Amino acid sequence: MKFTAKQIAEMAGGVVEGNENAEVWKLCKIEEGEPGGLSFLANPKYTNYIYDTHSSVVLVRSDFEAEHPVAATLVRVGDPYLAFAGLLKAYNELQLNKQGIDAQAYITPSATLGEKCYVGAFAFIGENVKIGNNVKIYPQVYVGDNCVIGDNTTLFAGVRVYCNNVIGSRCILHAGAVIGADGFGFAPTADGSYQKIDQIGNVVIEDDVEIGANTCVDRATMGSTVLHKGVKLDNLCQIAHNVVVGQNTAMASQSGIAGSGKVGQNCIIAGQVGIVGHIEVGDRVIIGAQSGVTHSMPSDITIVGSPAMDATKQRKNLVLARNLDKLEKRVRQLERQLEEQSKKEE
Amino acid sequence: MKFTAKQIAEMAGGVVEGNENAEVWKLCKIEEGEPGGLSFLANPKYTNYIYDTHSSVVLVRSDFEAEHPVAATLVRVGDPYLAFAGLLKAYNELQLNKQGIDAQAYITPSATLGEKCYVGAFAFIGENVKIGNNVKIYPQVYVGDNCVIGDNTTLFAGVRVYCNNVIGSRCILHAGAVIGADGFGFAPTADGSYQKIDQIGNVVIEDDVEIGANTCVDRATMGSTVLHKGVKLDNLCQIAHNVVVGQNTAMASQSGIAGSGKVGQNCIIAGQVGIVGHIEVGDRVIIGAQSGVTHSMPSDITIVGSPAMDATKQRKNLVLARNLDKLEKRVRQLERQLEEQSKKEE
Amino acid sequence: MKFTAKQIAEMAGGVVEGNENAEVWKLCKIEEGEPGGLSFLANPKYTNYIYDTHSSVVLVRSDFEAEHPVAATLVRVGDPYLAFAGLLKAYNELQLNKQGIDAQAYITPSATLGEKCYVGAFAFIGENVKIGNNVKIYPQVYVGDNCVIGDNTTLFAGVRVYCNNVIGSRCILHAGAVIGADGFGFAPTADGSYQKIDQIGNVVIEDDVEIGANTCVDRATMGSTVLHKGVKLDNLCQIAHNVVVGQNTAMASQSGIAGSGKVGQNCIIAGQVGIVGHIEVGDRVIIGAQSGVTHSMPSDITIVGSPAMDATKQRKNLVLARNLDKLEKRVRQLERQLEEQSKKEE
Repeated sequence: MKFTAKQIAEMAGGVVEGNENAEVWKLCKIEEGEPGGLSFLANPKYTNYIYDTHSSVVLVRSDFEAEHPVAATLVRVGDPYLAFAGLLKAYNELQLNKQGIDAQAYITPSATLGEKCYVGAFAFIGENVKIGNNVKIYPQVYVGDNCVIGDNTTLFAGVRVYCNNVIGSRCILHAGAVIGADGFGFAPTADGSYQKIDQIGNVVIEDDVEIGANTCVDRATMGSTVLHKGVKLDNLCQIAHNVVVGQNTAMASQSGIAGSGKVGQNCIIAGQVGIVGHIEVGDRVIIGAQSGVTHSMPSDITIVGSPAMDATKQRKNLVLARNLDKLEKRVRQLERQLEEQSKKEE
Repeated sequence: MKFTAKQIAEMAGGVVEGNENAEVWKLCKIEEGEPGGLSFLANPKYTNYIYDTHSSVVLVRSDFEAEHPVAATLVRVGDPYLAFAGLLKAYNELQLNKQGIDAQAYITPSATLGEKCYVGAFAFIGENVKIGNNVKIYPQVYVGDNCVIGDNTTLFAGVRVYCNNVIGSRCILHAGAVIGADGFGFAPTADGSYQKIDQIGNVVIEDDVEIGANTCVDRATMGSTVLHKGVKLDNLCQIAHNVVVGQNTAMASQSGIAGSGKVGQNCIIAGQVGIVGHIEVGDRVIIGAQSGVTHSMPSDITIVGSPAMDATKQRKNLVLARNLDKLEKRVRQLERQLEEQSKKEE
Repeated sequence: MKFTAKQIAEMAGGVVEGNENAEVWKLCKIEEGEPGGLSFLANPKYTNYIYDTHSSVVLVRSDFEAEHPVAATLVRVGDPYLAFAGLLKAYNELQLNKQGIDAQAYITPSATLGEKCYVGAFAFIGENVKIGNNVKIYPQVYVGDNCVIGDNTTLFAGVRVYCNNVIGSRCILHAGAVIGADGFGFAPTADGSYQKIDQIGNVVIEDDVEIGANTCVDRATMGSTVLHKGVKLDNLCQIAHNVVVGQNTAMASQSGIAGSGKVGQNCIIAGQVGIVGHIEVGDRVIIGAQSGVTHSMPSDITIVGSPAMDATKQRKNLVLARNLDKLEKRVRQLERQLEEQSKKEE
């Protein structure tokens, strides 16, 4: 896909200065400009790069004044960064704008689809599934019986949604995510083996949720595992059965919440964090990477460590722990002094 | 799927009291009852809820005596909890009771299938695969050449089984699980690059094993990686090449066992645990969350921490570690006292 | 697949001693030999096993002299271990030597494929994809638009490659690996919700890279996430957006590198390690299991712990930490001594 400087200016509501037929087909940082590249200059610190950049077109502020000749075609706009971000979004939408139902998709007759949907080859849509408008179901996605998917949601290749789950609008589920597998529930028996506890609840994912590649959200034993509006999960996360995650909470890669855990809204959970089951974490809690949260936590705190505790206290402890050899030396020194004293006294 | 109180009573071997045509189509906790819901009352502590519940049908003990009027239809049974669990299981089996070979499944002519199997659309069954009776292969599952799968086993959507692996009877493999990928084996060469060591062993999964979503069990370099009877693995676990996991051992999410590790039977491994390669963990060992097991462990102990050690000792250490600042203060105090003493002596 | 001792000798360039029609169809360790098994004897410590082994054929050194009668057929070769490894590799190649384009693969007309490729059933190859010679695309693989894949690369069942990514030659991607999902990038807004930052970069995987099952490599926000030549990633690893991993660096299972992290060449990263974003790790760094790397690290060091630090210092600290109760006891003892002194003085 190629665009001329003129087309860029029209899309961005700007004015061309230079060759309006200059073509671009990729996005570059201004300091790494290449022929065919589109860049932007927003931060004055980068101004020097504009005189040397190999980018073909550069978005600049309306009031930009060049102090040397500029080879690139300029497009003058109100806010170059915003204009660039807008173009970037438009470009991505264009690129991902698949439509139509592939002949090799499997859609049961009882399923219903809204308008302007995409269903790729080898996708499977089960009985009584209800899919909204403008939903994109990539190839090899599995949507089990009785699921409901809201408008403008995208399921990338190979997402698996077990039966009876609910996904909101404007959600994005990345490749390999698994929604609604059985919670890990077993009752020990007298002979040491386990009796499976049937998991008949479901998963409810509200609007504007994004779920990373190969992340797993288990169905509830009964009732629902819930991701509230605006939750963002990174890749390879684990959300166990009956967990509830509050609005706008974000969780980085390889973190997990065990069964029946509750996390409040607007929390930030770094990577490789573990939260044990049946506890409650408040709102706006920040949890450092690799922390292990072992008991309930109030709102508005920052915690780190395993077991996790208040970050200020923990960091002090960590400094001490990292220098335990020095503390031990001080104790040894004290012991020696006391011994010498007692010798003197003898 | 709707059931009447009368049908419920027949299935549960109970007696209806109230409207035998009352319909239910979902399961509810008695305290969260909704119209159309089926609940049970087993624990006397919850008795009060029966007078207010909105559930349409409630399973109660044969000898239950209402002290106030009850709106719900009652079904009297010997043990309400067991009856409910039985109905729940029946309901789930009904729901998951897929059968038949989809026309869009790919089954090689040399593969053999038992009776009453389900093979969904876009599933792939390789050469010489042997599949037992009543096996359920969901859409988009991959079963490589020469695999053997026992009776009554279920492979949910998108499970991948590489060639030459063996899976027992009554196993459940959840979506995205990968069985038999190459072990991580490389020999360093003189120039710093790695030479791949071909992995020609396989994976043997015995009966009654459950494997979570996106969990990986690697094939052995030679011989077999083995999950013994009744092993339960949660989501996103890693079982490396040549590992052996003993009977009825359960492992929670995001835990891993490195190459050639051996874990005994009836162990309980919590979430995000790592067990290094080439060590042996005994039977009935309990391993706390986020532990790192760095050397072999005897049977019948509980270990926590990274590196993992006896839980009692470790917990004492953890309390001290969490209060290292206090210990440091005591040392500082001692230093001050001694300094004062020595000043006095001067 | 069966081979006679004679065929084995021809493949391995050796000489048969005994029944040249003895058949083998599996590989066994000499101490676990079974009828139909092929074994080798390289280490003199194992010589005794050759007199009892049930293996049908054993590779031995040209100058091997039996002190007792041997039931197995011998094949005399220069180096039995190398010969065995060669046979093992040949066997594996034979086994994995799929070819041809399945009628049920979906290949867009604009995609191009080299010679001798395999594309399995239900695989999806998008627009303008360029695939080299002898590439193996297993069933249910997804390759998005505009991807490029080099010669002799294998994508096992269910690998997902988003659009615009580049994969080199002789790479192996295991089942369920996801290449090019969106980086985890969101800008917080005034109301506490997140605005998605479109991820329009890609992933570049150089030659000879191996990627484990269900591992995720995210696309760059802009530019490229890069795995340099010879990188080896185990299962369930996470490589975030804009990460760069140097040549021949190996990373064990369940480890992760956060956004924009840089790791040098020939590093060895053990399992369950986390490396935070925007830091730089030097060359030939060895990182112990479960370490948390929180700041940049120079080349040629070994680090362990969370937060990770020099291994020698850390191990000393760990020993002290594991015996904190003893240190506390010493402090208590000192306190008591001083108290007694002060009592005496009174």
